[in-house]
Amino acid sequence: MTVQYESFVEKYKTLLDKELAAAVNVLEAPKVLKESITYSLTAKGKRIRPILLFATIDAFNEKPELGMKTACALEMIHTYSLIHDDLPSMDDDDLRRGIPTNHKVFGEGFAILAGDGLLTYSFQLIAEDSNLTDKQKLWLIAQLAKSAGPEGMVAGQVADIQAENKALQLADLEYIHHHKTGKLLTFSVLAGALIGGASDEQLQSLERFSQHIGLAFQIRDDILDVIGDQNVIGKPIGSDDGKLKCTYPALLTLDGAKDHLHKQITEAKTILQQLNLNSGLLLYLTDLIAGRNN
Amino acid sequence: MTVQYESFVEKYKTLLDKELAAAVNVLEAPKVLKESITYSLTAKGKRIRPILLFATIDAFNEKPELGMKTACALEMIHTYSLIHDDLPSMDDDDLRRGIPTNHKVFGEGFAILAGDGLLTYSFQLIAEDSNLTDKQKLWLIAQLAKSAGPEGMVAGQVADIQAENKALQLADLEYIHHHKTGKLLTFSVLAGALIGGASDEQLQSLERFSQHIGLAFQIRDDILDVIGDQNVIGKPIGSDDGKLKCTYPALLTLDGAKDHLHKQITEAKTILQQLNLNSGLLLYLTDLIAGRNN
Repeated sequence: MTVQYESFVEKYKTLLDKELAAAVNVLEAPKVLKESITYSLTAKGKRIRPILLFATIDAFNEKPELGMKTACALEMIHTYSLIHDDLPSMDDDDLRRGIPTNHKVFGEGFAILAGDGLLTYSFQLIAEDSNLTDKQKLWLIAQLAKSAGPEGMVAGQVADIQAENKALQLADLEYIHHHKTGKLLTFSVLAGALIGGASDEQLQSLERFSQHIGLAFQIRDDILDVIGDQNVIGKPIGSDDGKLKCTYPALLTLDGAKDHLHKQITEAKTILQQLNLNSGLLLYLTDLIAGRNN
Repeated sequence: MTVQYESFVEKYKTLLDKELAAAVNVLEAPKVLKESITYSLTAKGKRIRPILLFATIDAFNEKPELGMKTACALEMIHTYSLIHDDLPSMDDDDLRRGIPTNHKVFGEGFAILAGDGLLTYSFQLIAEDSNLTDKQKLWLIAQLAKSAGPEGMVAGQVADIQAENKALQLADLEYIHHHKTGKLLTFSVLAGALIGGASDEQLQSLERFSQHIGLAFQIRDDILDVIGDQNVIGKPIGSDDGKLKCTYPALLTLDGAKDHLHKQITEAKTILQQLNLNSGLLLYLTDLIAGRNN
């Protein structure tokens, strides 16, 4: 089965990349704007959100292609958030996905505008989607805006900036992750479920499922940070030898973080198994999130 | 009649301000984000776009209140564009509407995020509007995104940055204004027309009307800049005593700019009069745009 799942992921990543390129290509916009947008959009990303969306539609035995425009919108909003988060006035990062960040190449002004353009265009793509009903499109637009806007991803980034160099409690850390990455991951699953024809009850279960994998995704990220840096392993947690880095291993110890991760994955799988969907692919992705880069 | 029109404008400005405050108030978002959003949203603006929208609905004898959520979305997108345009990496302005710009008060990071939040939230407001049909809402979302996105306002701002310190032709200047301010002004009128029940033919005429008043608005802005600065009047056009300021008076002379403005207003009114709408209020606003601050 794994081979089959791997080829599903490859197939839809390729289709998505083609669709994203086409969506930018048709724009009547200044050359530098299209270049700046394309630069970040085509950088090698994991495409986790679109893949979750396609896999969820597949779990309902519907055609994943139905979610193509929504998948483009999701990846555009994710990309805009990376461009803006990397800016000097935010996280001030020079590298992203192995290449210089957008503002390092195009300058801050065009980087901000590329982000603004991607965010705005994503709503147009859904509104003009000819594969979905009007009701579906309006639900997707409202939920996407809620997940990405001042109550969602933007709130998470604000909290993240406020948390800089502060000692956080677990609740603060979870607020940041729940908003900054969790809400958009949840939208990816729920959008797929809606397009697949889920009932309200199924939507609720899948919302809990996606919250567990969102958390698992973040814990795994933090664990990889520790495992990736040999010097950090075994260092006393909370030691004041510099900035306090607020991560799950820092707050829970490395073993504690692994336990917390395991718990999320177990609960996510239990929810899936109770749903009686065609969920082999979603289970595979759940394991992938738990064990990636191992 | 003028008194009646003035009271219409006052009435709907007050209603809009209340609705904008309520829309921000209900958000479950970090305090500083709501403060940053509110700071720019409640700064004394002319509210030209919402007023044009309400006046156009009124011209079709429909209730202007039907456009309230769209008016909020319009003003939010206009405000986001001002916040981002004022950033140091863009126009680098310290003052806006008589008070310090958003990033001067809240810092660049929170200013960018306030803009991102406003832009995203605006689409949610339209998608959740209970006064309009699904078809109307999807049309409004698609057109608003097109007007504000990489083919619209964002394109204009990119062109504006590229034009800095360059000698422009009239065509370049018109590209910038048509995209940077014209497209959103046109949307204001067309959105009102759609909500008012306009036919395709009426929409086309009103699109031409709005393009003329958009251009008139910009020429008037440039003329006010000249009239407002006594030192500039009479200075040889195109003299190389510093940066070339690209404005209509600079390109056409002050009298030429006034003629160009007059032509736009005449054509706008001719189109309106041929439409046989209840357009007294729109005619009044057209005159206001031509003669404001005189």
